[in-house]
Amino acid sequence: MKKSLPLTPVAGNGLLDRRLFLQSGLVLGAAQLVAGNAKAAAARPEWMSVPGEPFTLYGQPAQFEEEVVRYPAPNRVLRNNGASWTPLHRLEGMITPNGLHYERHHNGVPQIDPAQHRLLVHGLVRQPAFFSIDNLLRYPMRSQICFVECGGNSNAGWNKNPSRAEAGYFHGLVSCSEWTGVPLSTVLSEVGIDKKAKWLIADGADAFAMNISVPIEKAMDDAILALYQNGERLRPENGYPLRLILPGWEGVLNVKWLRALKAVEKPIMARNETARYTELLPSGEARMFTFTMEAKSLITSPSGGMVLKQGPGLYQVTGLAWSGRGRIKQVDVSADGGKTWAPAELQDPVLPKAFTRFRIPWQWDGSPAVLKSRAVDETGYVQPEREQLIADRGRQGFYHYNAIVTWGVDEYGEVTHVYDTEQKQSGTDVSIDADWD
Amino acid sequence: MKKSLPLTPVAGNGLLDRRLFLQSGLVLGAAQLVAGNAKAAAARPEWMSVPGEPFTLYGQPAQFEEEVVRYPAPNRVLRNNGASWTPLHRLEGMITPNGLHYERHHNGVPQIDPAQHRLLVHGLVRQPAFFSIDNLLRYPMRSQICFVECGGNSNAGWNKNPSRAEAGYFHGLVSCSEWTGVPLSTVLSEVGIDKKAKWLIADGADAFAMNISVPIEKAMDDAILALYQNGERLRPENGYPLRLILPGWEGVLNVKWLRALKAVEKPIMARNETARYTELLPSGEARMFTFTMEAKSLITSPSGGMVLKQGPGLYQVTGLAWSGRGRIKQVDVSADGGKTWAPAELQDPVLPKAFTRFRIPWQWDGSPAVLKSRAVDETGYVQPEREQLIADRGRQGFYHYNAIVTWGVDEYGEVTHVYDTEQKQSGTDVSIDADWD
Repeated sequence: MKKSLPLTPVAGNGLLDRRLFLQSGLVLGAAQLVAGNAKAAAARPEWMSVPGEPFTLYGQPAQFEEEVVRYPAPNRVLRNNGASWTPLHRLEGMITPNGLHYERHHNGVPQIDPAQHRLLVHGLVRQPAFFSIDNLLRYPMRSQICFVECGGNSNAGWNKNPSRAEAGYFHGLVSCSEWTGVPLSTVLSEVGIDKKAKWLIADGADAFAMNISVPIEKAMDDAILALYQNGERLRPENGYPLRLILPGWEGVLNVKWLRALKAVEKPIMARNETARYTELLPSGEARMFTFTMEAKSLITSPSGGMVLKQGPGLYQVTGLAWSGRGRIKQVDVSADGGKTWAPAELQDPVLPKAFTRFRIPWQWDGSPAVLKSRAVDETGYVQPEREQLIADRGRQGFYHYNAIVTWGVDEYGEVTHVYDTEQKQSGTDVSIDADWD
Repeated sequence: MKKSLPLTPVAGNGLLDRRLFLQSGLVLGAAQLVAGNAKAAAARPEWMSVPGEPFTLYGQPAQFEEEVVRYPAPNRVLRNNGASWTPLHRLEGMITPNGLHYERHHNGVPQIDPAQHRLLVHGLVRQPAFFSIDNLLRYPMRSQICFVECGGNSNAGWNKNPSRAEAGYFHGLVSCSEWTGVPLSTVLSEVGIDKKAKWLIADGADAFAMNISVPIEKAMDDAILALYQNGERLRPENGYPLRLILPGWEGVLNVKWLRALKAVEKPIMARNETARYTELLPSGEARMFTFTMEAKSLITSPSGGMVLKQGPGLYQVTGLAWSGRGRIKQVDVSADGGKTWAPAELQDPVLPKAFTRFRIPWQWDGSPAVLKSRAVDETGYVQPEREQLIADRGRQGFYHYNAIVTWGVDEYGEVTHVYDTEQKQSGTDVSIDADWD
């Protein structure tokens, strides 16, 4: 017999041991008891009386899930510029399905014929060369499950008032896929990189003509010329037919529709690494080339806009943690606004630079509560509180917001984003339609 | 400096060291050299001149990938009964995207309203109970990346003549997803299972009224009441809103549209565990309750129907291996019909009861070759040659075909399925439209 774990909370306000698997008779937290004859109670539903739908060549989500979609926020002037958020609050596990991977475009999604597409590798190389998609498909590949996150993700956190957006539409400019393609180091070895080359200028084949500078060390380390996402070929909005993947690094560097890599001595100082994707600090200096996405976590359920409608009792608290520096080592959860913390269970496999799902059972007693999660990665980096992040960076940053997220639960079970430890916040609504440009 | 690995083959007919990452100047296997000015050569494609397509709520594959679909084979009489195959030969990595997960239905796909769906758990229990989807969503969950494989997968391998189907349409009644849901042991503990109960009878809510017997040990071990597949809620054709997942076990036991679990002393001896999903052995006895899917592997590229159209040179040989008993330990590849073998690289993470992607570089010299792969799992089980499997099981089995798959490559680079070590086979075509019933 397995020894029973106590239902005694391991931290304030009802957090239970993460290893708690419910034992016989302990909880009956959520079931509906059957009174009388069970078989008679189980009437056949109507869909058992009619033959079902036929086979499909390519399946789609259930009609009842039509609200589980991305949230697009196009730029007010240039409609093809903007972003769309992944509904993280409606998902579970670590994989983001391809149809829901976040988007960030500067001039829409090009429709590229893969038979015509070429990657040019040139500059400080021994032998410049083109690679067609068919060429690339012949090389030995590598797969990596990793997140891609926009540098501007969660930027509503810099606002003075808490966001009224749901968790995914606030923090969902991050998604996690299995990317497969040719190691960039293979292709660079083919063309022979000159020792003087310190950067690669990556060009996209979209109508914005995206370009950005990538340090050669990262290119030779774990960069992938990705052809596949979650098993199938890339989706158009994620760079079909070829995308540069730099695991753990800011999304803008993961150039979509990749058409050229030029080896050079110095960065190109493109718009998206000077005017944008840099951060003005309180000192008046700007942070530039802030490549690595630092450790972050987010409770996805319960989260803003949800209601614990079944009343007091057992709930799963679950969310995601990730770090561009490597593996997540620990995620602590608090139900009392940060006074006490308990370690959440991390779902295996815990992979470097990938989403890590965390979960902890919570016995909600029906009184107001304040939920937080705090990620620690394998380098020892600890996700900061918002006050600390603002003290370090000021509020002119826009990018790289990774502070602890706080959800208030009121006595009706309604969940809202809060900045302090009070359960209800009276701040005015803020727009999440950031001025993408 | 990294020490160069030799291009000397490690096994017959051009198999190269699995750790070979191409070094400068070694191969230039597939690139197209640029003559003259590289920049001038890189003319802007037409899609850089027009704004791209707008944001989408739920993305779809590229129009150029419209041939990457499932292959449905409905029963000739009852059109809603049959199977559809995953195009494994068009995929890479370990995850199968949800739109391409294989299907096996007995009377079509029911369209179930999740608000009305209930799971009844009854029989030899202390307290029978209903669980709505909302009830289940409150319990702490577990995720597992694992394959689901139909017991009848690859059954064309029993035929006298080699199959002319592409690899996925021959072996693709297997797919691999991240499944997330409530551990079945949690729910069974809630209702209190009687010690006399040895089996659970699982009922589906489809118009076939699927039912089958599951040993209680498996139910209490790693079974999952799955609500999510690859991050999002289940697709209708894979059991929406609730599916029983038994990692590593025959697909038919992973009951879709799960509506009831009854704890009993003996199996129900349903049609799908007596007349079907059993195997007549040479001795005249029948194998029954053959739950575990044994180790198997398959080269997905190059594979049947493909052509090495770029001629002699470097190619990636890649495929999938999996075992219902646990982790894959090793995959050996042969290019000379099994005379010599070399170990392939296994892609991390290697997970129990999940697809494991293997890869090995191959220098094709343009002469006929015969490719094979052979999986070994962590229990030491070795995937058998076809002759051995037939000697053990006879040819009346239909189910559980897991023999080594052999692809012949001719001097034109055309790849076909063969049974012997000759590169060209003259057998007549066989139908892959199995008589699903």
